Amino acid sequence: MRVLVPFGARDPKSRLSSLFSPAERRTLAETMLADVLGALSDHEPVVVANAPVETPVPTQIDQRPLTTAVNARLGDEPTAVVMADLPLVRRETIARLLNTDADVVVAPGLGGGTNALVVRDGDFETDYHGVSVRDHRERARAVGATVATVDSYRLGVDIDEPADLVEVLLHGERETPAWLRDRGGRAETTDGRTQFRLDGRD
Amino acid sequence: MRVLVPFGARDPKSRLSSLFSPAERRTLAETMLADVLGALSDHEPVVVANAPVETPVPTQIDQRPLTTAVNARLGDEPTAVVMADLPLVRRETIARLLNTDADVVVAPGLGGGTNALVVRDGDFETDYHGVSVRDHRERARAVGATVATVDSYRLGVDIDEPADLVEVLLHGERETPAWLRDRGGRAETTDGRTQFRLDGRD
Repeated sequence: MRVLVPFGARDPKSRLSSLFSPAERRTLAETMLADVLGALSDHEPVVVANAPVETPVPTQIDQRPLTTAVNARLGDEPTAVVMADLPLVRRETIARLLNTDADVVVAPGLGGGTNALVVRDGDFETDYHGVSVRDHRERARAVGATVATVDSYRLGVDIDEPADLVEVLLHGERETPAWLRDRGGRAETTDGRTQFRLDGRD
Repeated sequence: MRVLVPFGARDPKSRLSSLFSPAERRTLAETMLADVLGALSDHEPVVVANAPVETPVPTQIDQRPLTTAVNARLGDEPTAVVMADLPLVRRETIARLLNTDADVVVAPGLGGGTNALVVRDGDFETDYHGVSVRDHRERARAVGATVATVDSYRLGVDIDEPADLVEVLLHGERETPAWLRDRGGRAETTDGRTQFRLDGRD
């Protein structure tokens, strides 16, 4: 199956700007991308980026919005779309996604996002704006496609906000947790959920 | 397998106090408990509560801290421990948990929690304080038990903070999403993650 990995290369991870400089956020985004590509190493992923980025796999530059860029690549063959900010994902998580049998397979992300999709129906189009997980299910049904959901924590936790970074420290296994620790990142226990802290910065 | 559902009945869901009164939070907590018990209807769950609560299943009152109350019930037979604030959980999620084969099975929750456990080793004890998902894995290895993790979004999203409530609206299927909607709860799209809003209150 064809696998697309969209990558927003312009000012990535802006909601982490209280913790990291623009250059650091760019490195963090590229490190997460590398972890996702590592989990995809049994496949032949193609990165679709809106600005140049160095990766070890074929990369296409497409400056259009995410939805347009993805839809331009759907339709002719079964295609998976896996976001680049999922550093918890393992090889077996990807296998579970790709082996789920339906015309459209959705992996929900925190806050209504669609962190991964498999599209086997030529009439289905994405819409990543708004509550995309709900919209994707509705669109699939509207074109008569069968829909399945992958119930995965590793696919569900995308890294957008400071609170997400503790998930990388606790459950990540590749480069991103090491990158965070190198910069002083640590998990701090509290009365509630464990928090991400950056030594010397907050 | 024996299934325990611990329920904190005293001032539950205090981190939602910006949205709901103490009485509402108590009702919300009981509604989530009912949804969890619904997902457990193929089994014979026992609620372990620190104060009286009306449920349709056997309930034991134990005023000790969560860890102590759970550990007092482990050891003699295989036991699952499923938290009461997991309204996204379905029957098939529970089946996946109980069918995972290891001496200790862990379902991680957001922020380092352990939202569900299966204990088949008589020497294993819980410790829900701190980063419990990490501690439970370490304790299992320390007593020579095999460990497996259940990779589940529905088990991973426990409801503690206002941002969690949007997950109930988007992915819940029983009473809790209806209860939230009856009180004016709705999902509001933003530039980032979809947010929970309560009409007339925030």
